[in-house]
Amino acid sequence: MTGAQYSVAIGEVEIDDEFWSPWVTRNRDVTIEYQYEQLEESGTLENFRRAIDGKEGGFQGMWFQDSDAYKWIEAASYELTKGDDPDLRERVDEVIGLVADAQEPDGYVNTYFQLVEPEKKWTNLHMLHELYCAGHLIEAAVAHYEATDETTLLDVAVDFADHVDDVFGDEIDGVPGHEEIELALVKLYRVTDEDRYLDLAQYFVDLRGHDDRLEWELAHLSEIAGDEFSSDDWEGSIHDGSKTVFLEEGEYDGSYAQAHAPVRDQDAADGHSVRAMYLYAAMTDLVAERGDDELRAALDRLWENMTTKQMYVTGGIGPEHEHEGFTEDYDLPNDTAYAETCAAIGSVFWNQRLFELTREAKYADLIERTLYNGFLAGVGLDGKRFFYVNPLASSGNHHRKGWFTCACCPPNAARLFASLGQYLYSTSGGELSVNQYIGSTLETTVDGIDVTLDQSSAIPWDEGVSVVIEANGTVPVNFRVPEWCAEATVTIDGEPVDHGESDYVRLERAWDGELVELTFAQEPTVVAAHPDVEADAGRVAVERGPLVYTAEAVDNDRPLHQYRVPDDADVKETHDTALLNGVTVLSVDVAVPSLDGWDGELYRPATETDNEPSSLELIPYYAWDNREPGDMQVWHRSDND
Amino acid sequence: MTGAQYSVAIGEVEIDDEFWSPWVTRNRDVTIEYQYEQLEESGTLENFRRAIDGKEGGFQGMWFQDSDAYKWIEAASYELTKGDDPDLRERVDEVIGLVADAQEPDGYVNTYFQLVEPEKKWTNLHMLHELYCAGHLIEAAVAHYEATDETTLLDVAVDFADHVDDVFGDEIDGVPGHEEIELALVKLYRVTDEDRYLDLAQYFVDLRGHDDRLEWELAHLSEIAGDEFSSDDWEGSIHDGSKTVFLEEGEYDGSYAQAHAPVRDQDAADGHSVRAMYLYAAMTDLVAERGDDELRAALDRLWENMTTKQMYVTGGIGPEHEHEGFTEDYDLPNDTAYAETCAAIGSVFWNQRLFELTREAKYADLIERTLYNGFLAGVGLDGKRFFYVNPLASSGNHHRKGWFTCACCPPNAARLFASLGQYLYSTSGGELSVNQYIGSTLETTVDGIDVTLDQSSAIPWDEGVSVVIEANGTVPVNFRVPEWCAEATVTIDGEPVDHGESDYVRLERAWDGELVELTFAQEPTVVAAHPDVEADAGRVAVERGPLVYTAEAVDNDRPLHQYRVPDDADVKETHDTALLNGVTVLSVDVAVPSLDGWDGELYRPATETDNEPSSLELIPYYAWDNREPGDMQVWHRSDND
Repeated sequence: MTGAQYSVAIGEVEIDDEFWSPWVTRNRDVTIEYQYEQLEESGTLENFRRAIDGKEGGFQGMWFQDSDAYKWIEAASYELTKGDDPDLRERVDEVIGLVADAQEPDGYVNTYFQLVEPEKKWTNLHMLHELYCAGHLIEAAVAHYEATDETTLLDVAVDFADHVDDVFGDEIDGVPGHEEIELALVKLYRVTDEDRYLDLAQYFVDLRGHDDRLEWELAHLSEIAGDEFSSDDWEGSIHDGSKTVFLEEGEYDGSYAQAHAPVRDQDAADGHSVRAMYLYAAMTDLVAERGDDELRAALDRLWENMTTKQMYVTGGIGPEHEHEGFTEDYDLPNDTAYAETCAAIGSVFWNQRLFELTREAKYADLIERTLYNGFLAGVGLDGKRFFYVNPLASSGNHHRKGWFTCACCPPNAARLFASLGQYLYSTSGGELSVNQYIGSTLETTVDGIDVTLDQSSAIPWDEGVSVVIEANGTVPVNFRVPEWCAEATVTIDGEPVDHGESDYVRLERAWDGELVELTFAQEPTVVAAHPDVEADAGRVAVERGPLVYTAEAVDNDRPLHQYRVPDDADVKETHDTALLNGVTVLSVDVAVPSLDGWDGELYRPATETDNEPSSLELIPYYAWDNREPGDMQVWHRSDND
Repeated sequence: MTGAQYSVAIGEVEIDDEFWSPWVTRNRDVTIEYQYEQLEESGTLENFRRAIDGKEGGFQGMWFQDSDAYKWIEAASYELTKGDDPDLRERVDEVIGLVADAQEPDGYVNTYFQLVEPEKKWTNLHMLHELYCAGHLIEAAVAHYEATDETTLLDVAVDFADHVDDVFGDEIDGVPGHEEIELALVKLYRVTDEDRYLDLAQYFVDLRGHDDRLEWELAHLSEIAGDEFSSDDWEGSIHDGSKTVFLEEGEYDGSYAQAHAPVRDQDAADGHSVRAMYLYAAMTDLVAERGDDELRAALDRLWENMTTKQMYVTGGIGPEHEHEGFTEDYDLPNDTAYAETCAAIGSVFWNQRLFELTREAKYADLIERTLYNGFLAGVGLDGKRFFYVNPLASSGNHHRKGWFTCACCPPNAARLFASLGQYLYSTSGGELSVNQYIGSTLETTVDGIDVTLDQSSAIPWDEGVSVVIEANGTVPVNFRVPEWCAEATVTIDGEPVDHGESDYVRLERAWDGELVELTFAQEPTVVAAHPDVEADAGRVAVERGPLVYTAEAVDNDRPLHQYRVPDDADVKETHDTALLNGVTVLSVDVAVPSLDGWDGELYRPATETDNEPSSLELIPYYAWDNREPGDMQVWHRSDND
C-alpha cells in the first residue's frame, strides 16, 4: 500500500477535470473555509479550550462534537498533501495544538466526557461516541502525518489508541455503538506497523454481536453516561443521542449498531447505514490484511443484499428516517427516503476497499454511481449548503441547509472531495486499474515500475476519454468499461483495439507515451425497478452515462405526476452551459392526460380518458434544488408493458 | 313537511331489505345497546349526576361529552318511532331525567362548564362546544317528541334555546366553532312553530365569518375557558380541544370553522369537514324556509367544489388528519385519507336537504354513493367496531376500534341507521320521489293524497326492483335512474314503459296496486380520476352498481402494487353468500410483472421487463378490514391509455 487507505495515495493524483475540478476547488476554497469558521461558531474549539483549562461543564454541541474538528483536520490535511498552504497549515496546527493540550496524561481525550461526565468514561459504549471520536482523531492524525510527515497529531492518536488498547479486552469488553475506530486502527497500523492496532481492530470487529455489554448497559441505564442529551435536540430523527433510545425502542436487539449477531453470521445490511458502511469497510480491511474466508463470505452476502435489495438507483442507502438506516428488502420509498449523504460516502469507502481486495469492476461501477448521484446531490452548487437527507421525490419543501446541529455530512463530504484522487486508480494486484474517468495525472509505481498517466475525460457530458501512459517497464493497465456503457471503442495511437465483452479492457505493454483513446457510448436509458419495490411500481427512471436524471417543476408545465414515460421513450440531449454550472439536459417524449372532456367531473370511466403527447424535461439528479423550489421526482409514471 | 327534517318521516317508512335490514337490525340490537353501556362506562351519565348534585370537578370525557348522551337519545328515539319498546323507552326516560335535572334555572345545561369552569360559560365559543352540545340536545328533543309526543326533553331544549336566544345577539355576538345548533334550531322551529328559533339559526349562519368574536377570544386566551384540555388527549389529530390550536396554527383565520369569510361569499368547501356539512345543511334549511337566492348560489358553488374537486370516489370527504378537513382542490391522498365517517354522515344530511329543495337526482345519487361506501365502511360487520378514519389504501395497520375518546362517529352512525327510512323517499314538490332502492313500505300523503308504496329491491347485488303503489288520487311518482346504471328498463304490470334519458322515470296516474318493475343494469366499471388528482394518477378503481370495490391482501397472492388493471378490463362477478355476510366479489383480468430475468438485479432497462396475465380479486369497499389484516387498496395501477 502506498497510502494508509488504498493502493494509490492522494498525493499521487492531481485532478484536472471539467466536471469535477470545480467541485474540488469549491470544496477547498469555500467548504473547508466555511467549516473552519463553524468550528469556532459551534463551540467545537472552545470545548477543547475549556478542557485544557480544566473547566467543568459549558460543553457545546453534540456529544461527538470533537469529531467535527478531526474531520476538518483530515480534509485540510488532504489539501496539504496536494501542495503547501501556509495559512491552512497554520490553522491545522492551531487545532492540533488544542487537541494535544486537551489530552489527559493517560492518553484520553474527549471533551464531552472531560467537561460533562468525567466520572463516566467508557460507561455508555452503545449510545455515546467515545470510540467514534477516537477513530476520527486517528484518521485525522494519519492524514496529517501522511501530508506533512509531522507527528504532532499522530503522537496524540497513538497515545489515545494505546490507552484504548489498555482499557479494552482488559478492564472492559465491549464494542462501540457507532463503528469508526475499527477502520481507523487499520490505518494507524499501516503507518506505524504496530500489530497491536490491527489486533485491536480485529477485536472490535469480532466481538460485535456476541458480547454482553449491551445487556449490561441496558441494566444500568441510571448509572451510565448520557443524561445530558435527549433526542429532542435532533432534527427529524430519534437518533441515538440519549439513553432513551433504548427505552423508546423497547426490546432493543442491537441491530441499530449491527450488533444483533456476530458479523460473520450476518446476511443482510441492517441498522444505521453509516455505521454499517464503516463496519463493512473495516471488515474488508481485515480481510485484506489477514485473509479470512468467513469474513469475506459475510461481506459478499452483505454487498449482494445491499446492492440488489436495499439500494436506491442513486446509490443512496438507508431509507428510514427514525434510525437513519436499512429496513427490509425492497423498501425504497422515494419521497420519504433518508439516503443520508454520509451513508453514500461510507459506501464509497467500503466499495473502494472491496475493489482493492478483488479488482472486480462492479465495485468501481457502484463508486461511480454513488459519486455522481447519491453523494453529489448532498452538496449544493454553492459549496455551503448540504443535504443530510436525499429523497428521490419532493413536494418542494426539502432544501439544503447551511449547517446542522448534527454536522456529520458536511465535513464528511469535505474529506471525500479533498481525497477524491484516491478513488480514480488502483495498483492493487500489481496491475494499474483505471476506474474512474476523471481528468487527472497519476504518478505512481506498479510492482516497482514507475508509471505516469495523463487522463483527460469528457465524462459525464460526452463519451471520449484520452489517456497517455509512460512507464519504465511492462505494466498491465485495465480500463473499466462502465456498466452504463452501450458500446465501448478503444484505440492505441489511433489503431483499434479488439477487446471482448469484459468489464475491463486490459492492455499490457512497456508504455512509452502511447495515446489510448476510449469512447463510452452513453445512450439515455429508461430503467425499471424490481417488481417488489412498491414505490417504483409502474414507474421508470432515466439515466444517461453515470448520471441519474430527475424532473423538477421549474422545467415542466404540468404537475410531474401527469407525465408518463414510455419504456422505449425517445430522448433528446442538449448541453446547456448556462444552466446549473453547465449540464446536459434531457427532453423525453412522453404522454400526458388530455384535460378535455372532464368538464366538472372528478371520476369517469377510464375508457373515456385520453392521453396526448408532451415532453418531460430532466436535469441530473445531483443538481436539483439549486433553483426555485418545487416538485421533484426521479421515478416517473410509465406504461410498463 | 311531515318530519322536522324532511318531507318523509321515519315513522312513515318500514325497511325490509336483504342488504340493509341486517345493518339496521344490528344497529338496534347491538350498537344502540353497546352505546348505552358506553354512556355509563365513559362517565357521560355520571357527569350529569354530579351536576345534579351540585358537585365541582370530576368531569369525565371530552368537553362535549354531553353530546354522546344526546345522540344516543336521538338514535333510540328513532327506534321508538318505529314501534314501542318499553325497556328502551325506560332507559331513554332515565337519561332524559338526568338532563332535565341537571338543567339550571335559567335553562343552561352543559356538564363540562357546570362542573369544571362554571364562571367561564360562553367565553370560548370557537374551541369549546357549548352551542354544539345545545344543538344535539335540541335534535334529541325533537326526535324524542316526534317519537313519543312527550315533551319531557323538548321542554328542556326549549328552555335552553330560549336562554341561548337571550344571550346571543344581546350580551354576546358570536358563532359556535363547531356548527350544529343552526340545523337543530330549524328542527325546533318546525315542531314549535316559533319563528325566533328560525331567526336564531339565521343569526348564527349570517354572522359567521364577519363577527369580531374570534379576534377577541384570541386576544384573551388566558381568560377564556378551555384550560383543562390539551390536544394530547386526542388520537391522531390535533383537534380543537385546547386553546393551543390557536397558537399551533399561528395566524388562525377561522377557516377551520368556516369562519374565514361570510358564508355567502364562500366558493370552496373548507375547514373541518363535519362542521362544514352541518353548516351547509343549515344553510339549505334556511333557503328552504325563507328562500334566499344569494345563500342558494353559495350552496351551489360549495357543492360543485366539493363533489368535483374534493371528494373521494367513496363519497368520503376531508382528506387531512390534522384538522380533519378539506384542503385544496384535487388533494385526495389514499393511504393518509381522513374521510371521517361523521363527515360522510354529514354529507348525507346536507344532500337530502338539497334534494328536498331541488328534487335533482344528483343529490340522491351522492347519498347512495356515500351510504354504500364512505359511510358503511365506518361500521364493522359486528356493529361494535367503528372507523373514525376511512383511508382508501392501507398497509394493514388501520383497524376499526370499539370506542374512541372522541366518540363522535359511532353514535352518529347509530342515528343515521336508525333514521335511514327518511332518505329513501321524498314528497317534496307534491311529487313522490323514489330515491333509494331499499326494500321498504311507505305510507304517506302526497299533496293531501294518501299513498302506500311497497318496494322490494335486489340492489346492490342484482338489478331488479319491484314497486307496488296504491293511492286515493293521481300522484306523480319519480323513480331515480342511478348514475351508475348502464341501461334501465321499466314496466307497469308487465307493459314496457318508454322512458327518456332523464335522471328520473316519471309515472303519473291514479295508482291502484300497479306493479312497477325496474331493472338497473350494473356493469362493473373501471373509473379514472381527474388528472389533477396526484394520488390516483395512472390508477383506476372498479365500481359495480352503487358499490366501490377494493382489493385486500387476503384475497390476492401478489403484493397489491403489482396488479395492473386495464382500462377495459374483463370482470367476472360471483355472489358468495358465505363471505362477509354475503357479497358479490369481482375477479378482474389483470397483468402482473413477470419475475423472470431479474436474477439479482434491482434495476434494469424498462424495455427488458415483462408482464403476465393474472387475476385481481375485489370485495366491496365497505366490507374491508373484517378479516385477516393486510394491505388494502381501492385505486390500482392501470395502463391508462
